[in-house]
Amino acid sequence: MDEPVLLTGAGGHVGRAILEGLGDAYDWRLLYHNPPAEEPDHPYWTGEVESHADVAPAAEGVGAIVHLAGDPRPSAPWDSVLANNIDGTHTVYEVAVEEGVEKVVYASSNHAIGAFETDERTPEMYRADDDFRLDGTELPRPGNKYGVSKVAGEVIGRYFHDTHGIAVCNIRIGNLNEDYPPVDYERGQAMWLSMRDCAHIHERALDAEYGYETVYGISDNDRKYYSIERAREALGYEPQDNSAHWDGTEYVGPDG
Amino acid sequence: MDEPVLLTGAGGHVGRAILEGLGDAYDWRLLYHNPPAEEPDHPYWTGEVESHADVAPAAEGVGAIVHLAGDPRPSAPWDSVLANNIDGTHTVYEVAVEEGVEKVVYASSNHAIGAFETDERTPEMYRADDDFRLDGTELPRPGNKYGVSKVAGEVIGRYFHDTHGIAVCNIRIGNLNEDYPPVDYERGQAMWLSMRDCAHIHERALDAEYGYETVYGISDNDRKYYSIERAREALGYEPQDNSAHWDGTEYVGPDG
Repeated sequence: MDEPVLLTGAGGHVGRAILEGLGDAYDWRLLYHNPPAEEPDHPYWTGEVESHADVAPAAEGVGAIVHLAGDPRPSAPWDSVLANNIDGTHTVYEVAVEEGVEKVVYASSNHAIGAFETDERTPEMYRADDDFRLDGTELPRPGNKYGVSKVAGEVIGRYFHDTHGIAVCNIRIGNLNEDYPPVDYERGQAMWLSMRDCAHIHERALDAEYGYETVYGISDNDRKYYSIERAREALGYEPQDNSAHWDGTEYVGPDG
Repeated sequence: MDEPVLLTGAGGHVGRAILEGLGDAYDWRLLYHNPPAEEPDHPYWTGEVESHADVAPAAEGVGAIVHLAGDPRPSAPWDSVLANNIDGTHTVYEVAVEEGVEKVVYASSNHAIGAFETDERTPEMYRADDDFRLDGTELPRPGNKYGVSKVAGEVIGRYFHDTHGIAVCNIRIGNLNEDYPPVDYERGQAMWLSMRDCAHIHERALDAEYGYETVYGISDNDRKYYSIERAREALGYEPQDNSAHWDGTEYVGPDG
């Protein structure tokens, strides 16, 4: 992607992972909800993501949008996810059409399919020897209203892809964390996404060619119930990390 | 269903088909958007479906809700479907939880999957000898914002089923019409739903036992690209009509 790329939600956790890993790789335009504490290295705007007037100036002339903005709380109340996540995502796509943006990479979430984690399936589904896998072809089952809003955002993308030809990649992000998950936190190990794998999957989503994709964004953990095959195939995702490489005391990975 | 049943959107096209066919079959409570022109045969309320204060009184003590209310226009703008269809459906489910409602039958739409009708597939997919079928297990592909809102409503139902145990049936209604479709309107013939089949599928959805279902609501047309097998299996739906029973001049069905 040679054209500028708009990053919405630049001040959030995922936004920071992307800017840390890919700050020099693209000509970023940043949209913040609140003014950043430190002066960013790229042009930036502040505003409400559901406001067309706030988003449009930041999107002028960009070739792609990485859309992360929204209420990130799994416990967020309905009114907040309705405005920030559902209406906000619609605004971003509307602006994308107006600006002739070719591609939108959308931060979906493991919460889009959180209700698959039933009492019957857990904790077995978190384990390396269990073969339960979600691969993005299943019908969504959100376990909270935040998850409902993320599914709605995916469907908004489906609509804008089908009717306006925008390339769309929904990345169902696992648990992004700088540290390896605790060894006794099975669920966390299964959906861990390292900071560098997070940056990498977004780089691949920006640079690969595709039409409409829904992929899982986790590291190559031994424990997993999300398949990363589609991310490998469609994006060329090659994760470097694995939650099993930390035994609670030290790094025990292949390069250890 | 022996307990009272709330019908939202009672003044709409589907609501009239249901009340014509099933007016005496249930103890209806009716919610209208605008005051009805004639005094209804059942207790009624008027209000905005997204307003908790407007919906809650109508739902008091009901055992089930048939939720039809919303902006029915395929061309409806985003702000309207966001408020009336998405937020409105959330309000209905919230009230359902508060009132201990057991079941919600939700008027979804063929527009939830309208973008499957691509130039490559049409008009062949409308024909009786074509084997393209949607059966409710496919990922939605709305072709307009109204369709996006209907998919969101289905997902809201999925969430409330999974987390609150409400039985949910999403009925993707075809083209409800009192008259047989024109013989040269292939698409219309393929998705025709007669008035009595419309009433019947809602009766079955109210009386059958299930957890979470998404079914297609069309008559047993020779032409079809929606499977009605799931409606038959899960609900016991037995449609009586078929768009092919009208040759443009007279009834040519099996009882003709």
